Amino acid sequence: MLIGKVTGTVVSTRKCESLIGSKFMEVRLIKNGKETEQYIIAIDMVGAGIGEEVLITTGSGARLALPDSKTPTDAVIVGIVD
Amino acid sequence: MLIGKVTGTVVSTRKCESLIGSKFMEVRLIKNGKETEQYIIAIDMVGAGIGEEVLITTGSGARLALPDSKTPTDAVIVGIVD
Amino acid sequence: MLIGKVTGTVVSTRKCESLIGSKFMEVRLIKNGKETEQYIIAIDMVGAGIGEEVLITTGSGARLALPDSKTPTDAVIVGIVD
Amino acid sequence: MLIGKVTGTVVSTRKCESLIGSKFMEVRLIKNGKETEQYIIAIDMVGAGIGEEVLITTGSGARLALPDSKTPTDAVIVGIVD
Amino acid sequence: MLIGKVTGTVVSTRKCESLIGSKFMEVRLIKNGKETEQYIIAIDMVGAGIGEEVLITTGSGARLALPDSKTPTDAVIVGIVD
Repeated sequence: MLIGKVTGTVVSTRKCESLIGSKFMEVRLIKNGKETEQYIIAIDMVGAGIGEEVLITTGSGARLALPDSKTPTDAVIVGIVD
Repeated sequence: MLIGKVTGTVVSTRKCESLIGSKFMEVRLIKNGKETEQYIIAIDMVGAGIGEEVLITTGSGARLALPDSKTPTDAVIVGIVD
Repeated sequence: MLIGKVTGTVVSTRKCESLIGSKFMEVRLIKNGKETEQYIIAIDMVGAGIGEEVLITTGSGARLALPDSKTPTDAVIVGIVD
Repeated sequence: MLIGKVTGTVVSTRKCESLIGSKFMEVRLIKNGKETEQYIIAIDMVGAGIGEEVLITTGSGARLALPDSKTPTDAVIVGIVD
Repeated sequence: MLIGKVTGTVVSTRKCESLIGSKFMEVRLIKNGKETEQYIIAIDMVGAGIGEEVLITTGSGARLALPDSKTPTDAVIVGIVD
């Protein structure tokens, strides 16, 4: 899993029907406590806010955190780091 | 998921039968609002045009956005960024 | 699989329900015997401690090491290197 | 998906039984029209020749292009770029 | 798939039960005939020895080369390059 800081939201009006209702967040990855130049877009499942440090699951495991595990995504925010 | 800008289309006449009818787009990845030197080829599901900023799902989740989830691909354009 | 050294734990109180009870470890990846600047967060299944060298499985295979293979993760510590 | 140029074949006499009959090609990845220093080994499904530009699917989607989707591979040449 | 040269073995006494009996090899990846600084740990299925050049499958496809496809791994040596 990855750790990152939420830096923004991504709005997409024209999207696949199965993604309607998903909240896309832009997350800047953190390595060894330092912010990197790597970014990922993830669906939020824990009510994360901008500036919060979050835990992200990628790949097929990400979908298991969603109500519908057939959602076409590859990254989900699964926790907020204390 | 990744964000990128559509930079072109890829035409392949000789291809696997299960890919016939798929529209392949070349997408230049964007990180932190800047275009990178990284590119991905993705199947378009939302009618994206050249120059548009799009949201891409990779891996097994990508196929879930297609009419046939057994299509042999690993990247699909699932949304257009507003 | 990857080899790394456990460098810390990650605490997340607000997280997906299916992750409750999972122990998240921060692992610094090792290549050719040298510590790198790459880090991964993995669920521990073998009682690894800080400073120990561990073996990590990523992707869908990681979940197969957990009691519940539907846990939304993508990295699990599956062994401690002697 | 990735685009690359076929640069050679890989011969392996001692291999897993389920890979017997597969034709392994070495492909040099192309980004933005330029050849990179990245290479991948992929099973050919479209009769690609050395020097041809090809489209590669990676991951679990790659196997869906093969007659037996249980073949232990992670990359398949699924098309030849015109 | 990846090509690499076997550089050593990895011994792990404390490991997940489902990995007991697996032989872990450290493989240095080769690109364009040159050894890189990238390493991967893979389960050997073809009796590869140190110094031999091998073909590695990663991800979910790797497990399909094992007797038990539920083994929690993400990389398997599936062939020895001639």
